[in-house]
Amino acid sequence: MTRISKAACIGGGVIGGGWIARFRLAGIDVQVFDPHHDAQRLISEVMDNAERAYSILTKAPLPKRGNLTFCTSLEEAVKGADWIQESVPEALELKRGVLTKIDAAAEPTALIGSSTSALLATDLQRDMKHPGRMFVAHPFNPVYLLPLVELVGGTRTEKSALESAREKLPTIGMTGIIIKKEIDAFVADRLMEAFWREALWLIKDDICDTETLDDVVRYSFGLRWAQMGLFETFRIAGGAAGMRDFLTKYGPCLSWPLSKLMDVVDLDPELVEKIAAQSDVQSGDYTIRQLEYIRDQNLAGILKGLKTGDDGRGWGAGKLLADYEKYLTENNSANAAYADALPLLTKIVSPDWIDYNGHMTEYRYTQCFGEATDVLLERIGVTSAYVETGHSYYSVETHMRLLAEAKLDDVLSVKAQLLQSDGKKLRVFMTLQRGSDDVLVATYEVLMLHVSSKEGRAVPALDEVRTKLDPLLAAHAQMPTPAGAGRSITAN
Amino acid sequence: MTRISKAACIGGGVIGGGWIARFRLAGIDVQVFDPHHDAQRLISEVMDNAERAYSILTKAPLPKRGNLTFCTSLEEAVKGADWIQESVPEALELKRGVLTKIDAAAEPTALIGSSTSALLATDLQRDMKHPGRMFVAHPFNPVYLLPLVELVGGTRTEKSALESAREKLPTIGMTGIIIKKEIDAFVADRLMEAFWREALWLIKDDICDTETLDDVVRYSFGLRWAQMGLFETFRIAGGAAGMRDFLTKYGPCLSWPLSKLMDVVDLDPELVEKIAAQSDVQSGDYTIRQLEYIRDQNLAGILKGLKTGDDGRGWGAGKLLADYEKYLTENNSANAAYADALPLLTKIVSPDWIDYNGHMTEYRYTQCFGEATDVLLERIGVTSAYVETGHSYYSVETHMRLLAEAKLDDVLSVKAQLLQSDGKKLRVFMTLQRGSDDVLVATYEVLMLHVSSKEGRAVPALDEVRTKLDPLLAAHAQMPTPAGAGRSITAN
Repeated sequence: MTRISKAACIGGGVIGGGWIARFRLAGIDVQVFDPHHDAQRLISEVMDNAERAYSILTKAPLPKRGNLTFCTSLEEAVKGADWIQESVPEALELKRGVLTKIDAAAEPTALIGSSTSALLATDLQRDMKHPGRMFVAHPFNPVYLLPLVELVGGTRTEKSALESAREKLPTIGMTGIIIKKEIDAFVADRLMEAFWREALWLIKDDICDTETLDDVVRYSFGLRWAQMGLFETFRIAGGAAGMRDFLTKYGPCLSWPLSKLMDVVDLDPELVEKIAAQSDVQSGDYTIRQLEYIRDQNLAGILKGLKTGDDGRGWGAGKLLADYEKYLTENNSANAAYADALPLLTKIVSPDWIDYNGHMTEYRYTQCFGEATDVLLERIGVTSAYVETGHSYYSVETHMRLLAEAKLDDVLSVKAQLLQSDGKKLRVFMTLQRGSDDVLVATYEVLMLHVSSKEGRAVPALDEVRTKLDPLLAAHAQMPTPAGAGRSITAN
Repeated sequence: MTRISKAACIGGGVIGGGWIARFRLAGIDVQVFDPHHDAQRLISEVMDNAERAYSILTKAPLPKRGNLTFCTSLEEAVKGADWIQESVPEALELKRGVLTKIDAAAEPTALIGSSTSALLATDLQRDMKHPGRMFVAHPFNPVYLLPLVELVGGTRTEKSALESAREKLPTIGMTGIIIKKEIDAFVADRLMEAFWREALWLIKDDICDTETLDDVVRYSFGLRWAQMGLFETFRIAGGAAGMRDFLTKYGPCLSWPLSKLMDVVDLDPELVEKIAAQSDVQSGDYTIRQLEYIRDQNLAGILKGLKTGDDGRGWGAGKLLADYEKYLTENNSANAAYADALPLLTKIVSPDWIDYNGHMTEYRYTQCFGEATDVLLERIGVTSAYVETGHSYYSVETHMRLLAEAKLDDVLSVKAQLLQSDGKKLRVFMTLQRGSDDVLVATYEVLMLHVSSKEGRAVPALDEVRTKLDPLLAAHAQMPTPAGAGRSITAN
């Protein structure tokens, strides 16, 4: 994986704004050029959505947000950028003109991607002096959550540019899929187009309304496609006999009169009005902003859900998320030995953390402390490699005090003070504080035991851990014992 | 909602087996007729998959599994059933014959559904004496997880039968969507067919291979469709300008040369071999059984993820799951006052509960105890209605001892002993035991405070709670104080 050091975004609409948020949340500075009078507001709204979505999506340590610079010219925006993303409206002449300008002003080694969902790179790069580094990089809305980028080169695109793009995308949590042959609309929009045509006929012919159609999709095969796509799903449907059997069995259906695809529906004003009116009935209780927020919650939930597939290795988009979290953790965990309590974790209280009282559910407190414990262990060298050698710390006893209520959107931070260690035992005291007013929300004391899984008993931690642990213990020994440590529960 | 008292399944393949699992997990007895020599094994494999999937899917109290009876004739199987589901192979003459037999033998008020994915109810019910109660009830694989049933009546189907079916389906966690006009393949398979055709062209023309196509779907729009479907997704894409704007803007694309739908692909042996070979490369490392398991994990993860959408109210299939859990909780929670420790909860340790040591992650222990606390509160009358009056119990202090490791697939049960209450405070001791060997895995002590949110302070519990709480406290006072209660943490 190769990092992007600076990004330029030309065009800051919904797609451009999504790219900007994606880059900034990955710690990359972004220079933007968009002459639209309302560009700054729109870009900042998308960033708000993205910040909120990431607080639900992941516990990985995100880097410091990349800086955002609004530029007054395209030339200023592309200066120094090694990834330039064009996201202007979908019209060949317009895009070609903008891309030709970008090419003229960009650093010689910069990659240039176009967000087009249908136009050919060959047509877009026609007037470029250095077309070799230009390609289609087609993302999906919301760009800050959906990981796919269709990478499609034109006749003059160099293969190495596509490969370089594919190497860089995982560092912003995306995956680039190279489409081998260049066709209009590539793969995704071809498939969506077919689906969309058939859907329009079903509405026009009054077989169902838009809400029914959406329900059919999201309560059935939409759930399957979200994790395995089409062919792998059908492979399962073929059962033990497999794909050949499935194709032989269902192939004949293709000649059934099951589709009106042969005709192109006329999207006349009457049909437009019909669909729009049905859509109002279906979704009209929500503003677009609310729908965006619900969609983002759902997508974050789905992505998190898919992280547990294939027995915890992650599956599909959930595996991509897991890989990105690994990358973030490896690149953004500080390792300094603080002479103060050690900051471990920051979380934002999301709606699904709230109980029927409107407060954060109890086990979410433990989750904060549990995840902070994981971070602490990683910091003192208890990595997965260490665990694979057969050594680890196990929690054997915990004591938690819930002192104040955490509520929706509270920013909570966990800090740790190491209390004692005899080499095998490790006693740690943690605090959970609210960011807005520094109120102490909860405290947590945990006793861990360093064990050898081979020997099945407690053993001293290995040197590679001691060299990290001991300086921390020494530093924290100078701090006063925290109030609340060593307490037991009493109702009297 | 109206319960189904007994179900009959005619045909026990992948779809029939899925129905059987769905009914049994909802507590409904099922009578099966399937003359296939291997039917019992297949049905039991599907049930294993379903049991496993539900252990990941939900913490709601599932009822005692419905009994499964294999019958030696169709007539025996349908006897006494009020929902009869036909799932024999997809051939008009075969299905029509079976359905005519079912009609002749069934109780007069029984509903008769066909699992067909393409045939018309009108054609299927042609020879029936009582066709009014027969309809298409088209489910989706895996039937025990995917909630949709397309309900389509024929010309002789009574409207009341469709409505009765729609009322009953939520009691098995499904939702029936009535399709107004009867067309071949209904709505779902029409849409899938259009998609499938375009996909076949993309493979045939070497634009991409099956794995690339699946990745495109599951890393992008598949994630969107799983939660909002097609039209609501496009509504968002239209932005503040809405659906009319979107249609006007993108309508013209329909006449672009973006699709090969006009031609029907020839699924000749060469193309069959090409697709099958690509699918082998893509998925060949997994057996169909493994893929089924991964798919089920993913679907359960997605459904759980969608339960948090719309600020915790649930969205799409996640809302259906939340509604089903509510139904299960209301119908399956015992309320007896035990003279012994009170069983509250049983959980199966799923893969996503496991940490890097291969053991259950710490916060999952607290989750078990936290969810058990919720169940306990509900049992003593702290319902959402009670909370809405401005009263509730808050946990203020907890002490947990982790005594043994829980591992994948362990069945864990939480029991509670009420220790003390002065009216405001409530101290409870809980145990977490492993089902296989009764090993005590963890203990948990919690001090809760009954508070008035209006007054912002601790107040005595109201009478409606005291009348349930006091008998439990009295019963538990006769038990010995549990070892480990009242302890504090020490590393010495």
